[in-house]
Amino acid sequence: MSTPRIKPATLKGFRDHLPGPMLAREGLIDTARSVYRSYGFSPIDTPALEYSEILLGKGGQESDKQLFRFTDQGNRDVAMRFDLTVPLARYAAQHLQEIGTPFKRYHIATVWRAEKPQKGRFREFMQCDFDTIGTTSNTADIETLFVIHDLMERLGFTDFTIRVNNRKLLNGLLETLALEDSTAEILRCLDKLGKIGRDRVAVEMQRVAGVTAAQAEGVLSLADCQGTSSEILDNLQPRISASEAGVEGIERLRELFQACARAGIPDNRVTLDPTIARGLDYYTGTIYETFLDALPGIGSVCSGGRYDDLAELFTSQALPGVGASLGLDRLLAAMQELHLTPAGTSTAAVLVTFFDANHSLDYLAIARRLRAEGIACEVFPDARPLGKQLKYADRKGFRLAVIAGADEFGENAWQIKDLREGEQHRVSDDNLAPTILDILD
Amino acid sequence: MSTPRIKPATLKGFRDHLPGPMLAREGLIDTARSVYRSYGFSPIDTPALEYSEILLGKGGQESDKQLFRFTDQGNRDVAMRFDLTVPLARYAAQHLQEIGTPFKRYHIATVWRAEKPQKGRFREFMQCDFDTIGTTSNTADIETLFVIHDLMERLGFTDFTIRVNNRKLLNGLLETLALEDSTAEILRCLDKLGKIGRDRVAVEMQRVAGVTAAQAEGVLSLADCQGTSSEILDNLQPRISASEAGVEGIERLRELFQACARAGIPDNRVTLDPTIARGLDYYTGTIYETFLDALPGIGSVCSGGRYDDLAELFTSQALPGVGASLGLDRLLAAMQELHLTPAGTSTAAVLVTFFDANHSLDYLAIARRLRAEGIACEVFPDARPLGKQLKYADRKGFRLAVIAGADEFGENAWQIKDLREGEQHRVSDDNLAPTILDILD
Repeated sequence: MSTPRIKPATLKGFRDHLPGPMLAREGLIDTARSVYRSYGFSPIDTPALEYSEILLGKGGQESDKQLFRFTDQGNRDVAMRFDLTVPLARYAAQHLQEIGTPFKRYHIATVWRAEKPQKGRFREFMQCDFDTIGTTSNTADIETLFVIHDLMERLGFTDFTIRVNNRKLLNGLLETLALEDSTAEILRCLDKLGKIGRDRVAVEMQRVAGVTAAQAEGVLSLADCQGTSSEILDNLQPRISASEAGVEGIERLRELFQACARAGIPDNRVTLDPTIARGLDYYTGTIYETFLDALPGIGSVCSGGRYDDLAELFTSQALPGVGASLGLDRLLAAMQELHLTPAGTSTAAVLVTFFDANHSLDYLAIARRLRAEGIACEVFPDARPLGKQLKYADRKGFRLAVIAGADEFGENAWQIKDLREGEQHRVSDDNLAPTILDILD
Repeated sequence: MSTPRIKPATLKGFRDHLPGPMLAREGLIDTARSVYRSYGFSPIDTPALEYSEILLGKGGQESDKQLFRFTDQGNRDVAMRFDLTVPLARYAAQHLQEIGTPFKRYHIATVWRAEKPQKGRFREFMQCDFDTIGTTSNTADIETLFVIHDLMERLGFTDFTIRVNNRKLLNGLLETLALEDSTAEILRCLDKLGKIGRDRVAVEMQRVAGVTAAQAEGVLSLADCQGTSSEILDNLQPRISASEAGVEGIERLRELFQACARAGIPDNRVTLDPTIARGLDYYTGTIYETFLDALPGIGSVCSGGRYDDLAELFTSQALPGVGASLGLDRLLAAMQELHLTPAGTSTAAVLVTFFDANHSLDYLAIARRLRAEGIACEVFPDARPLGKQLKYADRKGFRLAVIAGADEFGENAWQIKDLREGEQHRVSDDNLAPTILDILD
C-alpha cells in the first residue's frame, strides 16, 4: 500500500484496555449488576451526547470547563456527559409517566471529563451508579447502605469501612450555632478535615465562611465525638435538640445503625463520622463514603447520599431520592494492588492444540464436543511446533492443553496436559470430557 | 428554585433506554459474551474519542461526513469512533508486542454516526464484534461461522440462515472472465442483487464497471447455481479451475461445509450463496451474512468476513484475520417483534410489601434473609395502601409479593401472593424462603 502510515496512538488522558484488565473490569461490572439486581434495581442507559444546556452549570464552573463540547452537523450545541446523575435527572423528568415511582435504576456507563491527566486519573472513565427515586423513606437509605456493603463483600473485600453521616445533623448543629446561612461554605471546608487537618480547616472556615473562631471550634468539635455510633448520637443529641432537622437526622441514623446490627453487619464496617459532608450541595440527608482499610489513601471507592430533589431544573415534580456511585476504575486499581483480580487473559480453560494439519476438522469437532459439556475451549488455529503453542497457552493462562497427533488419532485417545501442575494424562476419547471436568472441578 | 426550567430532551437520532429494553439488551450482551468466551475470545476496550486522522478515510467519504468531529481543549482534532474495526486496527498495531498472535478479541461498545435518522436507525448504537487476528488458517474461518451459529441458537432462534461465500471464488470467476481489474465495482453491483434484481444489476454493471452484456451475464450466472453447497461447488469448479485463487476459495468452502456437517449443524442453516460479496473492499476470503427466516426484511443481523491485512495503515506487520459483528440493536428490535424478549422490568422475583411502618426493620430483615437464599427481592419503601403496592408489583412484573401486617407479625407468619396465578399462601417464618424457592422453581 502506498498510503503513508499513520502513527497508532491514543489521545492524552485516554487509554486502551488490554484483555487482562478488561476481564477484571467485566467481572467487577457483573458483580455490581448482580448485587443491584438482587435489590430490584433495573438498568437504564442514556446518550453519551446531550444538549449542552442540559449539562452546563450542573457540576459547577470546574465541570463546565471540563466538558467535551462542540457544535454538531445540525448546528446544535452538544456535549459529552461528565457524570450519570445529570442525565438521570433529565431522564427522570422526561420519562416520569412511563417509569413511575418508586424508580430504582442502575446505570453503568462511560463519562468524559477533560481534566488534567495524572496518575490514576483519566479523561474517560466508567461510573457505576444506583439510585432509588420518588421516596423519602429511610428504608431506601438503609438499603442503599446494604447495597454498598454487599457489593464490597461480593467483590472479595473483608476489611472496609463505610462511613455515614446525615446532612440534617450537620445542618442542625449549624442552626444551633446560628450559622445556617453559611452552610455550603462551612461544609466545603469541613470536607477537607481528613486532608489538611483541624487547625487549617478552622482558619479556612473563618476566612471563607466568615465565622468566628468560637463558631469554627463549635463545628469542629464534631471531630471529638468518640465511641460507638450510638454513643456519638447520645453525645450530639442534647446539642442539637433545638433543631427539628437535627433531631430527624439523629433518628434516621439511629434506625440505620439498628438495621445494620439486625443484619449482622460487623460494627467496624459501618461507622458514624459526623464530620463528613461531601461537598456537593445537592445532598440533604444520609451521606456515604467507603474506604478500603488497606488502602485508605486512594479515597472513597463508593460514595453517595440522599437528595431532596433530583430534577428540579427539568420538572416541577419533586423527585427525592438516595443513591451512590461505585468508583469502578479506582476500585479496579485497588483490586489489582491487593491481588484480587484474576491472572491471565484467557476466557477459556482449555487450549486444543493443533498438531496435524490433516486432522483440523477433528480438533474443531472435539472443541465443539467439549463446549457442549460446558467447557470453554479455544482451538489453536495453525499447525505450529507444540512448544510454541504451549508457550501461547502459558502466556494466556489456560489451565489445560489437549493434544493429539497421529499416534493418538490412531488409538482414539487424547493427551491432557495440566499446565498448572505440569502433569500429563492419556485418556480415551470417551473419557476426555469427564476427565477435564474432574480436573477443573 | 428560581432558575428557569430547561426542557428535558434528547438529541435528534439519540435515545434513552428504558428498563425493559435495557434488560433485553443486557441479556443479549451476556449471551454474546458467554458464547465469545466459550471460544476463547477475550474482551478489550478502546476510547470513544480518537485522533481524527486515525478514523478519517477508513470508511469512505460517507463515513467521514458522519463523524462527530471537533477540536478539544488541547487544540487536538478529535472524533468519536464510528465503528470498532478501525479502533481495533489502531489497537493491534499499537499493542502488538503485548497482545501477540493469534489474538482473539471481542469488543462490545457504542459507536456514533451522524446519519440521517430513520426508523430503526440511530446516531448512537452498540456494536458487538469478535475477530481472530494473526492467522490465515481456515479453522479460524470455520470457528467464526460456529460462533455465529451458536450465538443465534443461544439467543433462542431456531429458524435462521447463515449465508456464506468466499471472495476468492468471486475473484476467480472475474479472472476467468478477464474482469479482475473491475472487481470492486462489479462486486458492489452484485451486492445489490437481492434488492434490485438481476436485470437492473446487469445494466448497472455495464454502466458502472464498463463490462459487456455477455460479461455481466457471466457474473450473474452465479445466481443460477442451485442445489446443495456441494453441488454448487461442483458446478462452479470447472468454470474457475484456471484461477488459483478461485480453486483455493472452493477448497476452503468445501472444508467449511464438511465441518458444519460434522458439527451436526442442519443443512438449511448454513447455505452457500455465491452472489454475496459484502461491499467493503477489505474482505478477501470467507464472507458471512445471517438472516432471520421470519424477518428477512431487516437484513443481515450478523455479518463479517476474512481480511488480508487489518492494520496496514498503522503498521508494516501484516495482520490477516477473520471476524464478524453482531447487529445488536437490529437483533433486539427483531427479538421484540418475535416476542423473544422478557416482559416486565423487574430484576427481582419478589416484592416485599410495606404494610406497617413500625415494622420497617422487619421488612428489611426478611429481604436480606431471602437474598441470602439467592432470592432477589425489592422492599417497597413506603407504607402505602396494599392495592397501590400490588399495582406497582404488577406493572414491574414481580412474580411474588410477600405481605405481613400486625396479624402476621403476631403469629410469626407471612402471606405469599402469587401475582401470576393469583393464589395466596400463608406460611410460617421458617417456611417462607423454601416455599418461595419452590414456587420460583
